[in-house]
Amino acid sequence: MNNNYYLLRNDTITAISSPLGIGAISIIRISGKKSLEIIKKIFYTKKKKIYVLKINYGIIKYKNNIIDQVILLYFKSPNSYTGEDLIEINCHGSIYIQNKIIDLIIKNGARLAINGEFTYRAYINKKINLLQAESVLDIINSNNKLEHNLAINNLINNKLYHILNKIEKKIVNILSYIEINLDFFEIKLNIKSIKNNIILIENKIKKLIKSFKINNIIKKGIDISIIGPVNSGKSTLMNRIINKNKAIVSNIPGTTRDIVEGHITIKNLNFNFYDTAGIRKTKSKIEKIGIKKTYDNIKYTNIIFFVFDYKLLNKNKKIYKIIKTKKIIKNKNILFIANKIDKYNINIYKKKKYFKIGNNKYKILFISAKKKIGLDKIVEYLKNILPNNIELNNFFINNIRHYNELKIINRYIKKVKKDNSNKIALELISIDLRKALQHLYKITGKYFTNDNILNNIFKNFCIGK
Amino acid sequence: MNNNYYLLRNDTITAISSPLGIGAISIIRISGKKSLEIIKKIFYTKKKKIYVLKINYGIIKYKNNIIDQVILLYFKSPNSYTGEDLIEINCHGSIYIQNKIIDLIIKNGARLAINGEFTYRAYINKKINLLQAESVLDIINSNNKLEHNLAINNLINNKLYHILNKIEKKIVNILSYIEINLDFFEIKLNIKSIKNNIILIENKIKKLIKSFKINNIIKKGIDISIIGPVNSGKSTLMNRIINKNKAIVSNIPGTTRDIVEGHITIKNLNFNFYDTAGIRKTKSKIEKIGIKKTYDNIKYTNIIFFVFDYKLLNKNKKIYKIIKTKKIIKNKNILFIANKIDKYNINIYKKKKYFKIGNNKYKILFISAKKKIGLDKIVEYLKNILPNNIELNNFFINNIRHYNELKIINRYIKKVKKDNSNKIALELISIDLRKALQHLYKITGKYFTNDNILNNIFKNFCIGK
Repeated sequence: MNNNYYLLRNDTITAISSPLGIGAISIIRISGKKSLEIIKKIFYTKKKKIYVLKINYGIIKYKNNIIDQVILLYFKSPNSYTGEDLIEINCHGSIYIQNKIIDLIIKNGARLAINGEFTYRAYINKKINLLQAESVLDIINSNNKLEHNLAINNLINNKLYHILNKIEKKIVNILSYIEINLDFFEIKLNIKSIKNNIILIENKIKKLIKSFKINNIIKKGIDISIIGPVNSGKSTLMNRIINKNKAIVSNIPGTTRDIVEGHITIKNLNFNFYDTAGIRKTKSKIEKIGIKKTYDNIKYTNIIFFVFDYKLLNKNKKIYKIIKTKKIIKNKNILFIANKIDKYNINIYKKKKYFKIGNNKYKILFISAKKKIGLDKIVEYLKNILPNNIELNNFFINNIRHYNELKIINRYIKKVKKDNSNKIALELISIDLRKALQHLYKITGKYFTNDNILNNIFKNFCIGK
Repeated sequence: MNNNYYLLRNDTITAISSPLGIGAISIIRISGKKSLEIIKKIFYTKKKKIYVLKINYGIIKYKNNIIDQVILLYFKSPNSYTGEDLIEINCHGSIYIQNKIIDLIIKNGARLAINGEFTYRAYINKKINLLQAESVLDIINSNNKLEHNLAINNLINNKLYHILNKIEKKIVNILSYIEINLDFFEIKLNIKSIKNNIILIENKIKKLIKSFKINNIIKKGIDISIIGPVNSGKSTLMNRIINKNKAIVSNIPGTTRDIVEGHITIKNLNFNFYDTAGIRKTKSKIEKIGIKKTYDNIKYTNIIFFVFDYKLLNKNKKIYKIIKTKKIIKNKNILFIANKIDKYNINIYKKKKYFKIGNNKYKILFISAKKKIGLDKIVEYLKNILPNNIELNNFFINNIRHYNELKIINRYIKKVKKDNSNKIALELISIDLRKALQHLYKITGKYFTNDNILNNIFKNFCIGK
C-alpha cells in the first residue's frame, strides 16, 4: 500500500465492491467530489436527471457502445457511507462489464481505490470512529456467530468506544484532581480516593485484556491434542468425536505418525482436534519423528485429552511418567480418558474419578470409543469449557492492536498505583497517567492518530470497502 | 435441477445475487408475493415504512441479534426485473451475514431459488422474451468486447428477435397466400413469387447460421497449431508472438514434447497457440507420443503455422511429405513460415512467396524468430484472419440452441424450395412451412415453449439471476 494515497483526500475513487468473480449482479462504487460529474458522462437515463436516494435506471454507454443496463444509487454528501458524494452502480456481474465500467470511470477522472479506502474516508469525514472502521473489517471477515456479534455491536452500538470513553473520563478526572492540587496547594489530596479510582480503572482494563484472550479462542477455536500410549484408541476416539473416518485406525501400535486434524463445532465454538502418534519407546525413525511431533503439538494446544487403555488405570506410575517427564501438564487443561471399558467387566461407578498429580486433581472419564460409550460426557465437557459468564452480547476486545495498547496502558496504570501507594511525587504520577491516556487515544483514534497506525489498520481491508 | 420448481410460480424465492465469496457488499434478492411480508419480519427501519424505488436504510434483526446494517431496495410488481414484488438487500459481504440473511428469509416463508429462476420469472411474467432471457446469461458470461456486444444488443435492442420476426412474417405471408389459394381456387398462384420469397428467407437463415460459426470462433478464440520439423524454431516463435517465455527453448532437437499453449488477443480476438513436438522419425517413446499429439492437435485447430528452417525452402519434397502423408492440409488454413533467415545471406524479395500444393497456393513468410525479424507480418496475418465484413454491431447468433433450430428450419426451407420448383402439392409445402415456423417459435419462445426447453435454457444460469 502506498502511504501517499492517504494524503490525497480530495480526489475521486472507484472500485468493485461486491465479491470478485462472476455473478448475477455486481456493485461498483465511486466516491468523491467528481462522482456525479464522472457518472453524467457515461450514464444515460430517460428521466434526464439522477435522483438522490432513489433508484435510477439507465444505461452505461461509451461512445456508441452500450456497456450495460444498470441501477444507480446516488448518495449525496454528507449523507453517504464515506460522507462524500457516493454513487453505487448495480451492473451485471460479468468480468467484462465490471472491468469496462471501472475503466470508464477511471478514464473520466477517478482513480482505483486502495484497500479500505472507502471506510478510511468514512473515518476521516467523521462518519464513523476508528473503532467502528475496524469493526467493519471484522464484520466482513467474521465466520461465526460469536465473532460476528462482537463486530456488529461495535459498529452499530459503538460498545467498545463507550467503555473506553468511561475509562478515559476516569483517568482525566484523576489527572484534573492531581493538577488542581499541584496548582493550589491548599486543597488536601485524598490519596485513598485516588487509589480507589486507579483500582477501578485497572480492573476495567484487565477485563478487556482478558476478553481478548477469550475472543482469540473464539476466533481460532479451541485446540485439543489427543495423546496417550500407543494403541489406546486415540484415532478411534477422534473419529468418533468428529463423526468422520479421518484418522486411519488399526490395531497395530504406532499406526498414527503424522498429526491428523479434525474439527467440530459445538455451541458455535470450533474445536480443533490433533490426533497424535502414540507415546512409547521405539526404534522406528519415522515413529520417533511422530512422537517428537506429538510433544511439539502439545505446546501450542489449549487442552490435552490423555487417552489410555482402562487396564492402565491403576498403573499411575506409567501414566505419570509420560506426563511428568515432559512437563506437558504445566498450564494445560488435561482430561484423562480411560478407554476400552467394553473389554473389561467393571463397575465404573466404583472407580476413582480423579488423578492426583501434585496438588491438582484431574478428572477421569470412562468410555469406549469403539462401542460409543460415554462419548456424551466428552461433548458435555467441551460444552462447558468456556467460562460460564461469556455471553454473546458481552463485550470483547477482538483486535490485536487494541490488545497491545491495553497492555501498555495496564503497565502505566500499575505503575501509577504503586507510585501512589509509595507517595511518589504527583508530577511523576501525572506523567504516567498522561501516557496511559495517549495510548487510549491510539485505540479510539481520538485527537490524534498517526498515518502509520492508519496504514496498518486499513491495509487489511479488501478493495471496495 | 428439479423441473417441478418451474411449475411453482406463485411462491417466493431468494438467493445471493452478487458473486459468491467475501467482499465489501453483497446483494440478496427476494422475489414473489410474500417478499414484503417476509422482509417486514426481519428488517427494521427508523422510518417505519419501506418505500418503493427509494433507498431504505435499516437493520436486519433476528430475535435480539443484529445481523447487519443494510440498504434495501423495493421494486413493486409489475415494475421489477421479475415482474413480481422484488426486494434487494445490500449487506456486508461476509459469509456469515450472507448465509444468515438467506436463512432468515427462508425461515420466514421463501425458498432458495434455483439457477436462473429470477430471469425465468421475468420471462413468464413477460418482462423479457426468451431471447432476451438467454442474452442475460450471455452477458454475464461474456469475456470480451465482441461477445459482450452481441449479448447486450440482444437484451436491450432485441436485435435477434426483430430479425426472426421478419422471417416469421415472410413465412406466414407465403403460408397465407398458399392457403387462400387452397380455399379459393379462382386465384392464380404465382409460383415464381413464392420461389423468390423462399430464397429471401433461405438467405437470411443461412446468414444467421454462418454468423454462429464466426461467433463461435469469437467465443473460443482462433486455435493455431505451430508445427514443423524438429529444431525449426517453433517454440522460439511462439514465445516471441505471445511475448512470454512459455515454451522451453533449446537447440536440442526434440525439446518440446508436451503441447504448450500460449494466448494473445489482437483486435479483441483471442488466439490460442499450440506449440507442438517437432516432426521427425524418432526412436524415443516419449517423443513419439509427442509427435502423435501434434497430429491429434492439428485436427482440432483452425490454422496451422508450418515453421521450417529457411534452408529447407527448396526441398519442397521433404516439406510436402510431412504435410501430405498426414492429410493435415485438408480444410485448413496453412501459413508457411521460413525461419532463421538471419543465418543465411539472402534476399527474400527474390524468393518465391508461395508454395503450390495441388491446386492451392500457400503464402510463405520469411522471418527470424530469434532476431525478431518479420514478426509484424505474422501479426498482420492474424489481424486479417476474420472476414472483413464482421463489425461489432453486426448481428450474430451466439447460442447453440438457436443454431440447431436454424439448421432444422433451413432444412425445411430447402425442401420447400425444391418442392415448389417441382410443383409438388401445395398442401405438402404448407406442412413444411408450418414446421419451419414451429422451430422458429422454439427460438423466440413465442406462442408455445415446452418445459424441457426452458429447463435447458435456465439450468445454465447462476443462482441469483
